Amino acid sequence: MTTPSVTAPAGHPAEPDRSTGAGPGPGAAEAPRGPARRDAEATKAAILRAVRHLHARHAQADITLKAVAERAGVSAPLILKYFGNKDTLFAQVMSFEEDAVALLDAPLADLGRHMVRHVLVSQTEQGADPVLRIVFAPLHRERGETLRTNFRAQVGDRLAARLSGPDAGLRAELAVSALLGLSVMFGIVRGPHVRTADIEDIVERYGPLVQAQLTS
Amino acid sequence: MTTPSVTAPAGHPAEPDRSTGAGPGPGAAEAPRGPARRDAEATKAAILRAVRHLHARHAQADITLKAVAERAGVSAPLILKYFGNKDTLFAQVMSFEEDAVALLDAPLADLGRHMVRHVLVSQTEQGADPVLRIVFAPLHRERGETLRTNFRAQVGDRLAARLSGPDAGLRAELAVSALLGLSVMFGIVRGPHVRTADIEDIVERYGPLVQAQLTS
Repeated sequence: MTTPSVTAPAGHPAEPDRSTGAGPGPGAAEAPRGPARRDAEATKAAILRAVRHLHARHAQADITLKAVAERAGVSAPLILKYFGNKDTLFAQVMSFEEDAVALLDAPLADLGRHMVRHVLVSQTEQGADPVLRIVFAPLHRERGETLRTNFRAQVGDRLAARLSGPDAGLRAELAVSALLGLSVMFGIVRGPHVRTADIEDIVERYGPLVQAQLTS
Repeated sequence: MTTPSVTAPAGHPAEPDRSTGAGPGPGAAEAPRGPARRDAEATKAAILRAVRHLHARHAQADITLKAVAERAGVSAPLILKYFGNKDTLFAQVMSFEEDAVALLDAPLADLGRHMVRHVLVSQTEQGADPVLRIVFAPLHRERGETLRTNFRAQVGDRLAARLSGPDAGLRAELAVSALLGLSVMFGIVRGPHVRTADIEDIVERYGPLVQAQLTS
């Protein structure tokens, strides 16, 4: 519910109704200050938030660079400067590689709690979510299948490789299921209780459920 | 993975890539037999599957009765005969009322396992899911907010009312989170392990996680 300065969640799928999606949304409120006042990382983050926002509402083929630029409050040439071309830009949204590194960055014994905390902190502080965009796969037809394939390999299989014991693949999918559901509840359903509870309270309640799949 | 005769999952969000979505999909394979050979309930179910399929890919305002009819393999007048008008038809997709009744139809002590089983059986046997369509709320702009409001009241609040002890609202949302995640993993990610595992195996592994929120 907090909206930190540059990383306001306006461009996130979690926040679809605060803006019409036409033209710069609340996330573009920084725009008048001009890109010169942002550092490159913040600008890239704003562009990626804009892409993710649009990716939750339109088939990828229908998303123009201009629409991304307007929503991010930057110029289209600036996007090209940072990302090369539209394909490279969308590749960032289609890949879960970097997200998985951060999501799984904890010792196995504490991984359940870490993953729950990471999802909640990402949504509240970065206005982004490491896994939620997979739910929009049906929108993107054949590209949705790429999204699925990436997700399974980069998140599911990578987690499974960390697990010992039988049925590691199934247990990894069930642990990821629990995380995905929390992402949906927080970011899409916007459940009033999960959105107002203390993050550590949710970590305490929900982390063990995830962990039970990992080390049981 | 099974495709029972009339209730094939073709019209479900879970199955977006088996069909282009243009014209009758695999779910319409029954069409040549003609509506006269179906009973009314099966026809209604086919129409609702078609609506749900399209609702996962297009803003509601862009979905025509003709597109629903084509996908369901029925005529538009037949849809009107069963549902009155387009608004009544979409109201069925926007409401979780009937789904919640079936989802929550178990004693509290066994509710976690029942809900997990219900989600999996619905996906595999009816080609539908009681809760999954909430994830497409961002597609539908202001109608998405109706979907959210309905979901919170009809599923979350109703479950919370069954719970005793502190933080019933938060615990209900966390239990529903776990279910939603399983729906997403099965229906959208199409995790190969959850899709091939025995349903009762998943119920045994995942049911207790849901139950822990309900009766802990």
